[in-house]
Amino acid sequence: MRFDPADPWHRGADRLVLSEGHAVPVVYAAYAALGGVVGRNRADARRLRPEDLQHLRELGSELDGHPNPAEGFPFFDAATGSLGMGLSVACGLRLAARLDGSERRIYCIVGDGESREGQIWEALDFAADQRLSGLCAIFNCNGQGQTGAVSPRQFPDVVAAKVAAFGWQCAQIDGHDPGQILEAFGEFHAAKQPFAIIARTVKGWGVDLMRDRNFHGTPLSSSQLPEALASLERQPRSATGPAAKPVPAAPRPAPPAPVRKPIEIGTIAECLESAGYGKALQARNLATRRAYGAALLSLGRASDRIVALDGDVSNSTFAELFAREFPERFFECRIAEQNMVSTAAGLAAGGRIPFVSSFAKFLARAYDQVELAQISRANVKLVGSHCGLGPSSDGPSQMALADVAFFNALANVQNDARQSACLVLQPADAVAACRFTALMANHDGMCYLRTHRPDVPFVYGLEEVFELCGARVLREGQGPAIVTCGFMVHAALQAADALRAQGLRCTVVDAYSLPLDERTITAAVEHGLPRVLVVEDNYAGGLHAAVAALAARRAGFQVEALCVRKIPKSARQPSELMEALGLGAAQIAERVRALQ
Amino acid sequence: MRFDPADPWHRGADRLVLSEGHAVPVVYAAYAALGGVVGRNRADARRLRPEDLQHLRELGSELDGHPNPAEGFPFFDAATGSLGMGLSVACGLRLAARLDGSERRIYCIVGDGESREGQIWEALDFAADQRLSGLCAIFNCNGQGQTGAVSPRQFPDVVAAKVAAFGWQCAQIDGHDPGQILEAFGEFHAAKQPFAIIARTVKGWGVDLMRDRNFHGTPLSSSQLPEALASLERQPRSATGPAAKPVPAAPRPAPPAPVRKPIEIGTIAECLESAGYGKALQARNLATRRAYGAALLSLGRASDRIVALDGDVSNSTFAELFAREFPERFFECRIAEQNMVSTAAGLAAGGRIPFVSSFAKFLARAYDQVELAQISRANVKLVGSHCGLGPSSDGPSQMALADVAFFNALANVQNDARQSACLVLQPADAVAACRFTALMANHDGMCYLRTHRPDVPFVYGLEEVFELCGARVLREGQGPAIVTCGFMVHAALQAADALRAQGLRCTVVDAYSLPLDERTITAAVEHGLPRVLVVEDNYAGGLHAAVAALAARRAGFQVEALCVRKIPKSARQPSELMEALGLGAAQIAERVRALQ
Repeated sequence: MRFDPADPWHRGADRLVLSEGHAVPVVYAAYAALGGVVGRNRADARRLRPEDLQHLRELGSELDGHPNPAEGFPFFDAATGSLGMGLSVACGLRLAARLDGSERRIYCIVGDGESREGQIWEALDFAADQRLSGLCAIFNCNGQGQTGAVSPRQFPDVVAAKVAAFGWQCAQIDGHDPGQILEAFGEFHAAKQPFAIIARTVKGWGVDLMRDRNFHGTPLSSSQLPEALASLERQPRSATGPAAKPVPAAPRPAPPAPVRKPIEIGTIAECLESAGYGKALQARNLATRRAYGAALLSLGRASDRIVALDGDVSNSTFAELFAREFPERFFECRIAEQNMVSTAAGLAAGGRIPFVSSFAKFLARAYDQVELAQISRANVKLVGSHCGLGPSSDGPSQMALADVAFFNALANVQNDARQSACLVLQPADAVAACRFTALMANHDGMCYLRTHRPDVPFVYGLEEVFELCGARVLREGQGPAIVTCGFMVHAALQAADALRAQGLRCTVVDAYSLPLDERTITAAVEHGLPRVLVVEDNYAGGLHAAVAALAARRAGFQVEALCVRKIPKSARQPSELMEALGLGAAQIAERVRALQ
Repeated sequence: MRFDPADPWHRGADRLVLSEGHAVPVVYAAYAALGGVVGRNRADARRLRPEDLQHLRELGSELDGHPNPAEGFPFFDAATGSLGMGLSVACGLRLAARLDGSERRIYCIVGDGESREGQIWEALDFAADQRLSGLCAIFNCNGQGQTGAVSPRQFPDVVAAKVAAFGWQCAQIDGHDPGQILEAFGEFHAAKQPFAIIARTVKGWGVDLMRDRNFHGTPLSSSQLPEALASLERQPRSATGPAAKPVPAAPRPAPPAPVRKPIEIGTIAECLESAGYGKALQARNLATRRAYGAALLSLGRASDRIVALDGDVSNSTFAELFAREFPERFFECRIAEQNMVSTAAGLAAGGRIPFVSSFAKFLARAYDQVELAQISRANVKLVGSHCGLGPSSDGPSQMALADVAFFNALANVQNDARQSACLVLQPADAVAACRFTALMANHDGMCYLRTHRPDVPFVYGLEEVFELCGARVLREGQGPAIVTCGFMVHAALQAADALRAQGLRCTVVDAYSLPLDERTITAAVEHGLPRVLVVEDNYAGGLHAAVAALAARRAGFQVEALCVRKIPKSARQPSELMEALGLGAAQIAERVRALQ
């Protein structure tokens, strides 16, 4: 690897993704031997000393149990340890480098047992599609898993045959022979396509007493240490290996630093018109997913840091508007969401601002990857379309219903700057969807935008100014308050207007963000009766949980909820399904009346 | 296929899993032509008529937008439509049949674009490991995805090479040639290993006007219909095809019906002793994950309906106790959690009671599969070990922290019997863990058991009787109440005892289930001060959300919470990490004192 141990942030340096994250102690040891630098940033930097290794896994140490760059080990770009994700991260890093015109190489070590994870094969397909040269996957085939020997399906010959069938160039070597290792890396350097090294290795190589047993996650005792060291000394040095200990070569030149300035989309009218939505603008009626597409296109024009990924549904999420104009910054990930999310984390680590879109239901395929991206503090923007009951005719397999509960959990976690480590945004109309998309691009951290399928009328004026964490009072009244967001804002406004005609003036709040804008909501509720009806188009645990937590903390107001409480089925129209599940405008009005 | 259209529940019949679920309308049409029966059960059964097809996707129809057996289409065993899951379900169905000694064959149709999903490759590895004959995957290679042509990586030759490298026998055919189709099925019938047919097909075959454009999800207009029908009539009939329209052959004999009687584990003492935990029983100190293993072993002895699946961590989850004694009913799924969960759904559809275990964090890999299993009303028991902050030294990549929020969303959904469609159980000790495991086995529906890594003292007497939805008051007092569960019960009891020594008698409730046992919790809180501190070892959205929802609905008591509010890092001991995150016993006591 070409890198400078004294400057692990160098953007021209080669990178290693240790997908089999549990093997990290040996990387820490080698890094200390090379005099590598640790710390959360350059101001914090200090050399890792061999004696620091004794503090492995301690609360105060940068040396976490698995790779965790956010805790001060910048040699890595992403947290790994939940297996099978690293090769996708490596793809993202290499794509970012290619966009930068950088020749940095990306290495990824994958365990043989780990290669059972489907995501590895998603990454292999993706890298082949992208013809990603400069990417080297090393399969460490030691034959050992946690509970015993790996399956014959993960033996080196089989892995090599699979990798070749997936379109990668491939070398099979004795992973303990320095000559074969260097020769394989030479082949990699010359390769014009993604390259894999299948390394046959022995767990505990060189230490006889560790070869007999499975030392998975078990250190040697101090009494075993002298014998182990003596055993290592007795090993023959390879005749084909280099005479001297390899030292890292210098990094390649760093590409120009990305320009970090506000990325503007102009006015809403400009944004929508330039995407071809002039008519919708005049009619003031547009689906939030289309507005997202328009804003993404404007962002792409404003900054080449913006990149987009989609999983074969860009004509549904409307990422296609960006894809058509910026094909070199759009990555078609096909139907493989896990790889898509981890690749985005790699692109973010490479300095890009990735927007990742699919049906929200299908992003659930990658929740484990989302969690690892959050641990990595990856600046990834997740965009789930067709949320809630919108895809009514398709049936429940296409509906995101547990997504708000999941992301609400992530939203309630703080990052190191004591801010929410994941912002959830639920736009009620096209104006909000455009503005939220732009806010997300300018926020350094993970966000989740929830868009809907149907066209909806504008709720907001074109000049409305939003903050990332906010809420808007849409109707003010002295009765109970409806707190809602997203698609349900429209049903809530219908209900409120019907009630108003009957003389009941209820408050309606668009609580579009999680974490909640507690101040606005509390003020709105205090203005009327201390009774709130939360309305949402998903399973419990989302907005209602957040509002109930606020109410219960203060014991100040009563909260009831309408949400999806049955497993849905198909219906031709969302409105039919909403009524069948008790979420129609008339049903909302009835519940508000009962709260009086 | 050997099946009886008049009896789709026949247990000797061959089965089809339509993994590319969006293609279901053609199955509905063929089924109606065969006179197939629909309905939720035998009492409900009626023949599907051709005119019923007009009601496709309607709210009142059994014909959902994607395969959805729970809505009355029993030809299918599991909901599909979130792509890539069907082959795993098929593996589970075939495993169940093999255990039954049944020769029923399982067919699965996979789309070419869909074969990009990593889970397909997990299923291929798994079936090869299990040498699953009687399983036939049909890859429908029509070259079309939603947004355009599929990648060359999904072209028929490439798919065939991959499938062969994964160890399957394979035939490549023209998918429109009846002779080739029948020949391939003949090869399948003779095969002694899993078999794949790679079928080159043309989307819109036989209808010229549909071949020119991508008709993905778009029906013909009524004006196009005459031309389309005429085009079909013009197609030459294959010379090699059968003379008559194929009709289904009779099903194979049904295996004996599974015996549905209560499955008992005996006393806790018997259960733990027979698993080798006699010493722990005497010391009254054992990890919940070990107790789970003991109970699973006892269940396995009591009923051969019990099967277990694990993802290469059975020596951590303690599924190994079962695996050693019942190797034929234990399925080592290796490091591939998505396939594991969907395979379990297939086993459940085949009449077994599958227990699926892994680190809870790694079950997050399969949340999309869990949702589809819930839509299928699959009787699957999910067991996540090493929850919360327990794997402290490993770091956050190994910690399940958003799991309770996710499963709480599923727990708040009702099935058709108006019961929770997913029960969440958080045992505080080995007694509860054993009992909950047994309760889960005897409950027909999805459950999630959350076990922990460290040994903990018994909280309950050996004779304690639990219900699935319940809570236990462990300390009664006049002060504020601590509502907690699982591992945190121990810290809460320490805090309560320390406070008691200072004269403050607070209530402690073990709210072990979601949905909440609202009556017990309300009664306990009403007994003391109307102030509650919820304590949990995960991100927000779990127990706290449930208690806050209860409190806010009644506006009756105040609820504050201690949960994980920062992204954790490694620490050598869970106790250190808990203190660093504000969850230590002293910190709990301090917060209770402030609530007085």
